[in-house]
Amino acid sequence: MGDLRDEKKFVINFSAGPAKLPETVLRQAQKEMVDYQDTGVSVMEMSHRSADFSKILNTAEQNLRELLEVPDNYKVMFLQGGGTGQFSAVPFNLMKLKPGESNAAVFVFVLRALNLYMINLFPLHAPSNLTPLCSDFPAIPEPSTWNLNPEASYVYYCANETVHGVEFKTIPETNGVPLVCDMSSNILTRPIDVSKFGVIFAGAQKNIGCAGVTVVIVREDLLGHAMDLCPSIFNYQVQASNNSLYNTPPTYSVYIMGLVFNWIKGQGGVASMDRNSSVKSSAIYTVVEESEGFYCCPLDAACRSRTNLPFRIGSVEGNDALEKKFLEEATKAGYLQLKGHRSVGGIRVSLYNAVSVEEANLLAGFMRNFMAENRHLLDSPTQ
Amino acid sequence: MGDLRDEKKFVINFSAGPAKLPETVLRQAQKEMVDYQDTGVSVMEMSHRSADFSKILNTAEQNLRELLEVPDNYKVMFLQGGGTGQFSAVPFNLMKLKPGESNAAVFVFVLRALNLYMINLFPLHAPSNLTPLCSDFPAIPEPSTWNLNPEASYVYYCANETVHGVEFKTIPETNGVPLVCDMSSNILTRPIDVSKFGVIFAGAQKNIGCAGVTVVIVREDLLGHAMDLCPSIFNYQVQASNNSLYNTPPTYSVYIMGLVFNWIKGQGGVASMDRNSSVKSSAIYTVVEESEGFYCCPLDAACRSRTNLPFRIGSVEGNDALEKKFLEEATKAGYLQLKGHRSVGGIRVSLYNAVSVEEANLLAGFMRNFMAENRHLLDSPTQ
Repeated sequence: MGDLRDEKKFVINFSAGPAKLPETVLRQAQKEMVDYQDTGVSVMEMSHRSADFSKILNTAEQNLRELLEVPDNYKVMFLQGGGTGQFSAVPFNLMKLKPGESNAAVFVFVLRALNLYMINLFPLHAPSNLTPLCSDFPAIPEPSTWNLNPEASYVYYCANETVHGVEFKTIPETNGVPLVCDMSSNILTRPIDVSKFGVIFAGAQKNIGCAGVTVVIVREDLLGHAMDLCPSIFNYQVQASNNSLYNTPPTYSVYIMGLVFNWIKGQGGVASMDRNSSVKSSAIYTVVEESEGFYCCPLDAACRSRTNLPFRIGSVEGNDALEKKFLEEATKAGYLQLKGHRSVGGIRVSLYNAVSVEEANLLAGFMRNFMAENRHLLDSPTQ
Repeated sequence: MGDLRDEKKFVINFSAGPAKLPETVLRQAQKEMVDYQDTGVSVMEMSHRSADFSKILNTAEQNLRELLEVPDNYKVMFLQGGGTGQFSAVPFNLMKLKPGESNAAVFVFVLRALNLYMINLFPLHAPSNLTPLCSDFPAIPEPSTWNLNPEASYVYYCANETVHGVEFKTIPETNGVPLVCDMSSNILTRPIDVSKFGVIFAGAQKNIGCAGVTVVIVREDLLGHAMDLCPSIFNYQVQASNNSLYNTPPTYSVYIMGLVFNWIKGQGGVASMDRNSSVKSSAIYTVVEESEGFYCCPLDAACRSRTNLPFRIGSVEGNDALEKKFLEEATKAGYLQLKGHRSVGGIRVSLYNAVSVEEANLLAGFMRNFMAENRHLLDSPTQ
């Protein structure tokens, strides 16, 4: 068995999720794996009701509240099932907020999240009561065109869609209808005004930890309205009143998330993550913009994601041979997981919090070099 | 940062769950935490669709199939939500197996599991269609007294109840009605004939890993009958046809579980776990039996659990002062997590697979010493 200081080979992991974690977090988890703070046991082996684990759980909650400035009238829960689980949990908990079934309606953006959400939502009420809002071409429709039902139980949207790379830069105005937001892919990358939301949820495996734990933040007045059929592990009232301990929580994932919250605090908090996010995404988009068509990103700059940056090579339809070459050379050089989502192809760079400014700059340098060496192939008759 | 070979203080963790893991598993996880097999990344950082993680997932499934001799007409899934999640998933997936609502019925044993299960089951059909079977005093009713509805959609039971320490030693006969079993607390501690079951599920945090992943084994003919309202993460058909990758699985928990399966194979498989389980539980029960009333376990020997062994000191009602003293001295000596469940009090020894025969014998020795030193206090007027 080796020493903890062993060097590993150079890689930068740009995975869309599960994604890179801060190396200091992994080193601390490694050090504490067999014996957590002289308890003689691993965090994995601790009863979820033990004093040691309670401290881990409560400290994680406290740090998240501090980082996001969560108001006191919101509950914070750490649940299982990821964003896809919440696609069911949200309607089970909120559809009954308005009396009767007829006025339950939602409003959803962006194709992939919409599709997955709808699968879970449709059985719960008549499709005619939905107000889905999305476009074939990934973009955010003009707010003036939104035809929001003021009698809707809630409005759901996805703050950042990872496949096409579309991000909301402002919070939609819903005129009092509770707003539900999936923030899995941009939570803690920018300050947010939590008080504008009814429910915020986020799977941990992008910005805040490892897969298996889901952060759910709920305004207290929305608790206690769950449908009878709501599974108890998804019931916000039940979980909130049990401090996320109604059933055994994913204890080790909660611990890793807590380490990430500590790391973010040490880095200067959300304001610092926000600055880094701008610098990192600008580094990549600048290469695209200045590439004179070598790299193509069809998205309007106003809705371009800072955490998921998809682009093609040669044209908006892409060039399969050059994209394959790009991915092969990138992987060889240690730049990992840059392949676009299987539904759209091309290249995708994910720049979550654990990717440093320096690492984004290194990739930008690789992109410039690749362009210089391969531009002549774009017009080559063999392509 | 220390060396991986650092010694830690002597403790034995008898927690009821999350519970002890084999130290070799923790050491391997520690070694691979920052850099999994020279990939340059942690398992936590791997895309769930990457080749490296696919191999981890598929190997874990293959090893579990081998260990439990799972027939080919069964699907194996690794899901989120634990046993409590499956308390909802089971009725959502199976209630529609029989036509109409009237003949959906279940049959359940043992108080705590019954209570939790009922919370999730009642909203799904009329209580009058349930055939709950349990007794106030924890025990397994005589099979001849079971009034099983042959038109039930399925029969559910919990193979080992952790609070009172009641375990089924045989598989209930349901005459063709699909049998559903929660095996969280005794899976892989004894050979089972999987072909007798419709569904087997088990949270990992007792015998097979860390909290956050749930093993679900389903006979193929039971797939495809889910209610429209079934959350997609719980839909057996959806998850089975996506190889547990419909949504992001709890990747690191799957990895740890895979390490545990490897460890069990290396120890000689389920037959070896079964032998150890008998030896370990006998070591403790023998001390109780030979204690002349110092340690009391009111359960009938025929249904005593081999994995969760509850007992009292002095009488079946217990002796608060002596039990407190026992727990304090045990903790001081390194024997951890021996407090009985908060609903019943007393002492509880959990002997899952990762607790060795040697460790159970050490605890038996401690129990004998404590008895010798404290028997005089039982009749003391100060008690």
